[in-house]
Amino acid sequence: MSVAHANGTDPREHSSRPPSGVARPPGRPRDTRRDPLIIEATLTELAANGFGGLSMEAVAAAAGVGKATVYRRWPTKGALVAEALATLATSHEPHDTGSLRDDLVAAVNAVRRHGIQTLSGRIMPRVLAEKESHPDLFDTYRQQVIVPAREQVANVLRRGVASGELKADLDIDLATDMLVGPVSYRQYTAGSNEVSGTRISQIVDTVLGGIRAD
Amino acid sequence: MSVAHANGTDPREHSSRPPSGVARPPGRPRDTRRDPLIIEATLTELAANGFGGLSMEAVAAAAGVGKATVYRRWPTKGALVAEALATLATSHEPHDTGSLRDDLVAAVNAVRRHGIQTLSGRIMPRVLAEKESHPDLFDTYRQQVIVPAREQVANVLRRGVASGELKADLDIDLATDMLVGPVSYRQYTAGSNEVSGTRISQIVDTVLGGIRAD
Repeated sequence: MSVAHANGTDPREHSSRPPSGVARPPGRPRDTRRDPLIIEATLTELAANGFGGLSMEAVAAAAGVGKATVYRRWPTKGALVAEALATLATSHEPHDTGSLRDDLVAAVNAVRRHGIQTLSGRIMPRVLAEKESHPDLFDTYRQQVIVPAREQVANVLRRGVASGELKADLDIDLATDMLVGPVSYRQYTAGSNEVSGTRISQIVDTVLGGIRAD
Repeated sequence: MSVAHANGTDPREHSSRPPSGVARPPGRPRDTRRDPLIIEATLTELAANGFGGLSMEAVAAAAGVGKATVYRRWPTKGALVAEALATLATSHEPHDTGSLRDDLVAAVNAVRRHGIQTLSGRIMPRVLAEKESHPDLFDTYRQQVIVPAREQVANVLRRGVASGELKADLDIDLATDMLVGPVSYRQYTAGSNEVSGTRISQIVDTVLGGIRAD
């Protein structure tokens, strides 16, 4: 979640200061130590009630701060939720053991672990349900959560094409859907315990049966 | 939703009358002609606002009836939404052209047509988001919409096993996930226009490559 900066400062602290050239409001600089608590409370509220049902009051109460503290930093609910969603970005370990099959199994298992049982996974149906009225929120979610999860699978597939193990003209995007889709679909429609490691191996083996180079 | 009764009466009509032995309230029997409008308005409200955000007042207004008319028939919001979800059941044409591949393509295309762009598809993320607080509603949705859509694909697969075209020990449930999952996942995460007929044929061909009898 946090990115190490060359000068060692925490970028979240930095971003809470006014842009250079803008006069800082009078008085003490705002205390930013509670920001992570506010962000966490925002994500929890979002998972529970959606954007429409989220109130700044409830976020403040859950974070143990006054309402004014939240409003001083995030003047609107939209700004607060957008920043909270942006923190969902996860960095993924690359999967590269030398075995295409094992790497695919590992990458799809990582998708599964980020499924419906996590806070980020529980937010998915919320932003999806409100996609029409708040397309920007869904888009942030997609960029921070969905795209990186797909990319780790796609990267393994690209290596398989480069090594000649997979068909040279493989549609990486489609093959990614075929590996991630059955897992994500199953978790959301049937419950989080419905996708076992064995099931993931079977999905990988079946798809590999259809996409290996002849 | 409807179960044939021994005496041949429509159970829906029947259920709007007081149970036998209970005196009918004084006055004319309730006018049931507006019921389909109320049900339709309920589904539309559910897709737009979820169960938490749905109000009986808004449903009544959208259906052009008085609030009392709605409450007389459905004393609670839960009862109204449960009955509305139960009407989502769709009967599917069986796919049986003699070609396993063509039948699978047709069955998966039917799933796609019932996707996110339909009223029933837009309700999906709503009931999913509220699965924890209202598991019964999600369950009704699953039984009425998800299970029948899966069954039409599963039935084609079962025929393929019976004819010897597919592996004798094929896991029908898993193969169904592998055909429906990539389509459903893609529609919800990338937009309804993202799944073309060509894409569905490619999914079917790839999965068939992995599940055909040797």
